[in-house]
Amino acid sequence: MKKANKKLNAAIIVIGNEILSGRTQDVNVLNIANWLNKLGVKLEEVRIIPDNEKTIISTINEIKNLFRYVFTTGGIGPTHDDITAKSISKAFKVKYCYHPQAYKILENYYEKGKFNIGRKKMAKMPKSASLIFNPSSAAPGFFIKNIYCLPGVPSILKSMLGGLNNKIIGGKKIISKTLSLRTVESEISVPLEKVQNKYKNLEIGSYPFFKQGRLGVSLVIRSDKLKLIERCKKEIMIFIKKKKIQIIINK
Amino acid sequence: MKKANKKLNAAIIVIGNEILSGRTQDVNVLNIANWLNKLGVKLEEVRIIPDNEKTIISTINEIKNLFRYVFTTGGIGPTHDDITAKSISKAFKVKYCYHPQAYKILENYYEKGKFNIGRKKMAKMPKSASLIFNPSSAAPGFFIKNIYCLPGVPSILKSMLGGLNNKIIGGKKIISKTLSLRTVESEISVPLEKVQNKYKNLEIGSYPFFKQGRLGVSLVIRSDKLKLIERCKKEIMIFIKKKKIQIIINK
Repeated sequence: MKKANKKLNAAIIVIGNEILSGRTQDVNVLNIANWLNKLGVKLEEVRIIPDNEKTIISTINEIKNLFRYVFTTGGIGPTHDDITAKSISKAFKVKYCYHPQAYKILENYYEKGKFNIGRKKMAKMPKSASLIFNPSSAAPGFFIKNIYCLPGVPSILKSMLGGLNNKIIGGKKIISKTLSLRTVESEISVPLEKVQNKYKNLEIGSYPFFKQGRLGVSLVIRSDKLKLIERCKKEIMIFIKKKKIQIIINK
Repeated sequence: MKKANKKLNAAIIVIGNEILSGRTQDVNVLNIANWLNKLGVKLEEVRIIPDNEKTIISTINEIKNLFRYVFTTGGIGPTHDDITAKSISKAFKVKYCYHPQAYKILENYYEKGKFNIGRKKMAKMPKSASLIFNPSSAAPGFFIKNIYCLPGVPSILKSMLGGLNNKIIGGKKIISKTLSLRTVESEISVPLEKVQNKYKNLEIGSYPFFKQGRLGVSLVIRSDKLKLIERCKKEIMIFIKKKKIQIIINK
């Protein structure tokens, strides 16, 4: 597993019955993915699992050595269904206890007499965990080894990512260029595959869309090498021009 | 594995670099989850994986015996990055070949001379697969054993779910009742946990929200037994009244 670990890759574990039940639309994956792009870390897998201790423990244990960084979202609030911190303590076989600094932060945040059991729970985490500070609502996230535990509320999660920038060792920023075309996928699939086969180290995605009643296809070229993207795009342009396909967006 | 298979549960495998790269917001999970609720099938896990043959094969093989139904989304179009059908053929060690009926459907759909290689590719699938008809854009999905392969475009996927209703053996519809309260989680976490401990067979979720600048908490009670939900809700109402918490929504 050591080999895979050297890759600048990441996985997200979304912990939340509310996503699996269809009650809530997850948006944290998109936000974390875009943040990781800027840091040059590739998101390679996401798992959405229920608020279930056994499942959290087995998922953490299965995933932790496969990815350089693992982010969890959800389950670090004050209620009975918030079991992420306790489950991760069990996964790492360390004590689940008050983090002194987290306790202080929360104690100072709440008015005197208002620091109740539920609020105190948010200071409990795996022993030896480090804090991820929360500029919006005080209750911190934490990280232990390569597991970074964030809250589920999107606005709070987003406000916490910046504080992690210097904790994540990234690579070259992943660049993405888009060509949106007035065509359908099956008109371009053959020459496009030829270009992809020539540029093995670069990812070309093809995504059909329907906008304002009209069909189109967006080609998205991704790599950390801008020159390679530009060379590849030129080759795509050759068959687009030959087929007289209209370009809607080129950016 | 036979035992787990008897549960009326499901998993979704979202196949798509565009979701992992942060380019596209997935909405298929939410739509499938809500459709499964009505059929009385519980969505228990989601994996989002890249358009990578090895990963698709290993994920299918790992998951297929753990859930009664497995749905895949994405990767069944005409371009080079659409590799779901081929990968699933390999996972099941069956031939990847033209499905005669799918071929006919597509041949009829396109004008004469327009049924090109890319379009023909959409008729290729694992040998012995059955079709999932597509009322919006002709190209069918397919299922083989307990794996149901759907497209990634949300509107097309949604239009295909209805045709699967009689293929999915479900259970009692999962009912969900919501109490939205003008409070914060930490004010109710202790009595709420007591109620949850009393009603072990029922799921109570607690979700904080911020709307129009004000804080609140939604409690969501889920079960296939309406009477049990109502009994549980009554007990929650007792401590809500005692704490003089305002009820915003009760439905």
